[in-house]
Amino acid sequence: MIVALAGGVGAARLLRGVQAVVAPDTVTAVVNTGDDIVLHGLHISPDLDTVTYTLAGAINPETGWGVTGETWAAMDALERYRGATWFRLGDKDLATHLYRTQRLGEGAPLSLVTREIASAWGVAVGLVPMSDDRVETRLVVDGQEIGFQEYFVGRQHSVPVESVRFDGVERARPGPGVLEALAGAERVVLCPSNPIVSIGPVLAVPGIEAAVRARRDDVVAVSPIVAGAAIKGPADHMLAELGHEPSVVGVARLYAPLAATLVVD
Amino acid sequence: MIVALAGGVGAARLLRGVQAVVAPDTVTAVVNTGDDIVLHGLHISPDLDTVTYTLAGAINPETGWGVTGETWAAMDALERYRGATWFRLGDKDLATHLYRTQRLGEGAPLSLVTREIASAWGVAVGLVPMSDDRVETRLVVDGQEIGFQEYFVGRQHSVPVESVRFDGVERARPGPGVLEALAGAERVVLCPSNPIVSIGPVLAVPGIEAAVRARRDDVVAVSPIVAGAAIKGPADHMLAELGHEPSVVGVARLYAPLAATLVVD
Repeated sequence: MIVALAGGVGAARLLRGVQAVVAPDTVTAVVNTGDDIVLHGLHISPDLDTVTYTLAGAINPETGWGVTGETWAAMDALERYRGATWFRLGDKDLATHLYRTQRLGEGAPLSLVTREIASAWGVAVGLVPMSDDRVETRLVVDGQEIGFQEYFVGRQHSVPVESVRFDGVERARPGPGVLEALAGAERVVLCPSNPIVSIGPVLAVPGIEAAVRARRDDVVAVSPIVAGAAIKGPADHMLAELGHEPSVVGVARLYAPLAATLVVD
Repeated sequence: MIVALAGGVGAARLLRGVQAVVAPDTVTAVVNTGDDIVLHGLHISPDLDTVTYTLAGAINPETGWGVTGETWAAMDALERYRGATWFRLGDKDLATHLYRTQRLGEGAPLSLVTREIASAWGVAVGLVPMSDDRVETRLVVDGQEIGFQEYFVGRQHSVPVESVRFDGVERARPGPGVLEALAGAERVVLCPSNPIVSIGPVLAVPGIEAAVRARRDDVVAVSPIVAGAAIKGPADHMLAELGHEPSVVGVARLYAPLAATLVVD
């Protein structure tokens, strides 16, 4: 068994490679849900969806998020109301959020709904949210605290980040089976996702970081920084803004207590 | 000023005629919200939407509900999850529910959101929900109580109705300005909607029936029954099932305490 701690695009692409070389059902991905957002009353889990759509071969190749062959009738119609169209939800993608929200409203835990959605897409890699409890990544920019998506999408991650916290994390329990999977895994992989806001929330769920440290010899981190730059997203400048070196050395220092091996490009 | 008590399709068509012959901004429609349903986490107000889309000239002429030129990508995608597709929500129509749900979540009352939506469609007739409070029309069929949409859409209103009640109505307050509008109106119109489940919930909101009765001489009811049959929907057989005569005579008996005038085809 391989257990991977995962964010969105970077993790999804690594996992797509992993599932091509090992039996997908021997891989479990513990996915960040600190980026989740409730918008229009809908529960949106961007990282879970990116991993699901990517492993299903259905990710939109142009955007790296959302599904291929997407249409935008709902968003276009929402313009009439001057509704919140800054977070683009395609018509097909909306179905995922409609289903998730309906099921959560019926009392199903996010982990179960995640399995249902992954199964519907034929994804054999086990996907587990880092927690069934609400954890919300909050960032201070310009002296004001905002939600992750407001930073990432709304401000296109172009403003300096002063601090990051994971609201609710102290009360969150790890997703079902996560600690057991970490304890029993042959290898634990820290995917090439943003160490602060993608892997960070997963590790912040009480019990998960300790479970990873306990497996340090078998933990492999894959650097999301190549030649001083993030492959995608704001990891490079966010590391610098928060006092880390925006390089593989900085990543190595962050992950040294957790991972005996760091894979660099 | 004309004040109309309104349900969905029948009311919408009458109001479309009314707005063609009098200044639309002198007309206020008090619209049934007992049919409202929360589905996929979205707050759906079918009668408000049917009236809005019809008065905007945007109603789908084939269905009588939803918007013209609709697409169904979200519903089609929801099939993958075997989600609740029995209540068909078009992609453009979804935008209305996304907007309404977002605004209600922000604390805006339904009456304000209704004005915003109507205004976005250029509707000059004043649209007011019968109440900003939740009222839920519940029907007993086959000895079991179900929601209105489950009866109307889910079972295509083909099962006999044993009883009807409006859950929450005793605590509901009339929509803002409704009692004042009824008191000051030149004419009050009971639209040709289902007397039991469309006009019934409006009248059941405490204060509204008394306000209508107080204006009996100026109240004009328009029969939804023509030659013993409902123009649309289950009004005819529902009247019979609940012990009323399914004819204009039956409608006249129901409305006699409220309306001095009954318009029949």
